Amino acid sequence: MIYFDNAATSFPKPKRVYEEMLWCMEKYCANPGRGGHKMSLESGRAVLKVREIISDFFNIKNPMQVVFTKNATEAINIAIKGVLKEGDHVITTCMEHNSVIRPLKALEKENIIELTIVPGDEFGEVDAEDIRRAIKGNTRLIVSTLSSNVNGIIMPVKDIGSIAKEKGVLFLVDAAQGAGSIKIDVEELNIDMLAFPGHKGLLGPQGTGGLYVREGIKINPLILGGTGSNSESFMQPETFPDIFESGTINTPGIVGLGYGIEYINRMGLDNINILKHKLVKTIYEGLSELRNVKIYSRPEISKNSGIIAFNFDDVESNEVSYVLDKVYNVATRSGLHCSPLAHTKLKTIKTGAVRISVGCFNTLEEVKIVLKFLKEISDNTI
Amino acid sequence: MIYFDNAATSFPKPKRVYEEMLWCMEKYCANPGRGGHKMSLESGRAVLKVREIISDFFNIKNPMQVVFTKNATEAINIAIKGVLKEGDHVITTCMEHNSVIRPLKALEKENIIELTIVPGDEFGEVDAEDIRRAIKGNTRLIVSTLSSNVNGIIMPVKDIGSIAKEKGVLFLVDAAQGAGSIKIDVEELNIDMLAFPGHKGLLGPQGTGGLYVREGIKINPLILGGTGSNSESFMQPETFPDIFESGTINTPGIVGLGYGIEYINRMGLDNINILKHKLVKTIYEGLSELRNVKIYSRPEISKNSGIIAFNFDDVESNEVSYVLDKVYNVATRSGLHCSPLAHTKLKTIKTGAVRISVGCFNTLEEVKIVLKFLKEISDNTI
Repeated sequence: MIYFDNAATSFPKPKRVYEEMLWCMEKYCANPGRGGHKMSLESGRAVLKVREIISDFFNIKNPMQVVFTKNATEAINIAIKGVLKEGDHVITTCMEHNSVIRPLKALEKENIIELTIVPGDEFGEVDAEDIRRAIKGNTRLIVSTLSSNVNGIIMPVKDIGSIAKEKGVLFLVDAAQGAGSIKIDVEELNIDMLAFPGHKGLLGPQGTGGLYVREGIKINPLILGGTGSNSESFMQPETFPDIFESGTINTPGIVGLGYGIEYINRMGLDNINILKHKLVKTIYEGLSELRNVKIYSRPEISKNSGIIAFNFDDVESNEVSYVLDKVYNVATRSGLHCSPLAHTKLKTIKTGAVRISVGCFNTLEEVKIVLKFLKEISDNTI
Repeated sequence: MIYFDNAATSFPKPKRVYEEMLWCMEKYCANPGRGGHKMSLESGRAVLKVREIISDFFNIKNPMQVVFTKNATEAINIAIKGVLKEGDHVITTCMEHNSVIRPLKALEKENIIELTIVPGDEFGEVDAEDIRRAIKGNTRLIVSTLSSNVNGIIMPVKDIGSIAKEKGVLFLVDAAQGAGSIKIDVEELNIDMLAFPGHKGLLGPQGTGGLYVREGIKINPLILGGTGSNSESFMQPETFPDIFESGTINTPGIVGLGYGIEYINRMGLDNINILKHKLVKTIYEGLSELRNVKIYSRPEISKNSGIIAFNFDDVESNEVSYVLDKVYNVATRSGLHCSPLAHTKLKTIKTGAVRISVGCFNTLEEVKIVLKFLKEISDNTI
């Protein structure tokens, strides 16, 4: 199968990810932070090493501020529910995933927060100045996706971060799309909280993700329980990362994530970005030559994290993905991609769109094959 | 290393758990429920199969009522925070883990709930009639551990379940210790909500766990986001299991968990229980012959899920575990085990205790070796 559904989860992972997860599980996987014996300590060291790898990768000063979660959605929920209080105003963008919109809309519905959704241009890119204009006296938080999971559009997070810093507003970035090919420096971008999945661009396994919280931010935990620390107390410890890591964490998954990021480091983040752009640009140009096609993504490297969303005028998006799968053995995704907001912006809320999302293991050869198939589908609809 | 820390996480897992996780990751692991292509569908089928395996294992009628979580702690937090409202009264036991006590104490501190902690006998076993006597007009929930993670004492969950049913009070069981060797039939035991880890007695990998919620119970989700369903809505779907499974779930981990439970089914739950009891009884009897030893566990099969907690009068619990690890290469755990409540009951809150917790891969041979080491430690303290 040719796999072009990397925005959902990357496939495959680097071989070493599998090998090291297996090694961990077979050889030393005890409970990290829950005992003083060799295996527990080795598990603890392995987890700490990945905290450090992640910190280096995002230029986070203190690895203890990196919290492991089960996925990016948990991380986003911790951040949103952990910092917002009654009366707070939140600003977000028109391209957010349901992982951002659903918790925000629920708080709005309960009259806890006010919510402003900033509109973008035709591709959904917001103007940072629109965010500045939306800031009010009670604005507590700005939430922006790094890049849309529907069409790959990249948000001006650096400009938004500067504004947030200037205005003293917290800035949460959802890096579900883009982490692993777009450089993210939390200091340079003035990111206060960064939510990331482990199993997409970072090439780790499912069941992993994380949240970075800048030191000094007061934030409440979502899940309370045993942390292996302050065991004598009925109260959740306030120290990082324990405050957010109740219960046993996913040691082999985290180990795999570490090796995913090390693979990216070895390959070079920029090289991955350039490769993905080359693939995206080729798809864009090939698709553009087909009749009756409408493309919702931009081809420029600075505007696209690796996704081409499109529709044929005459064909249901689901039908295109279905034929690509059944007839041609190509994995893509169609429909709404858990992002009704983005589809409203792109005027595809009724039709959905076909999404081709590339990963660092895709090749130009695969792209050419898919373009040939798409031409056949397009021709057959005449 | 001889591994006797199975109450923290079981080690090793059945070989097939590793193999099937690897096969899943290498061959088909796309995002389940997030696409219509072959790999996504195969991932979805694999996850569904494990829901069915779990349902069969716990006699759950509808597999859709089984929700996958990252660990038992998340499951317990969902259950507690999802059903309790201001003014509710909750009853729990003196042997609960911090995964139960911390969320309950936090709600009590915020004046949202009233909390009654029922005392037990000297081993912490509660009398179900004490729970009946604690029930008031506003009692909404009873939470009981199936078995203590400190000394293995098994609670009379069947009796508690009958009382809960009779009184119309919800019954949540924390099966972190005991699932995988003690038979749990949610119908027979009148369990309304069952929280379980995947990585302990069920022999799955870390990063897995689950929550069963009886059909018809009104319960709010803790984490909101994309579920691959109702994508067009800003509101979290209310259907199970999607309501609690926001974001990408841990497909390979869940697959591994399925094969862990299948291993138990093949070995026979009762056979595992008998084996663990044989080991526990041998440890108990061997320890009893040593001087100055205080044992906090009961040896009977109906009173112990596979844990012996003890102290030597003259030696720090941490020192015993340290020597077992460093000198003898045996993994045990000492200290408070995230359960200050239980240690208060056992009068070990200051000293902690040494915990030997057996798993289905431990042997009588290993037990005899450890008893020899413990005799040496005991003799050396004369």
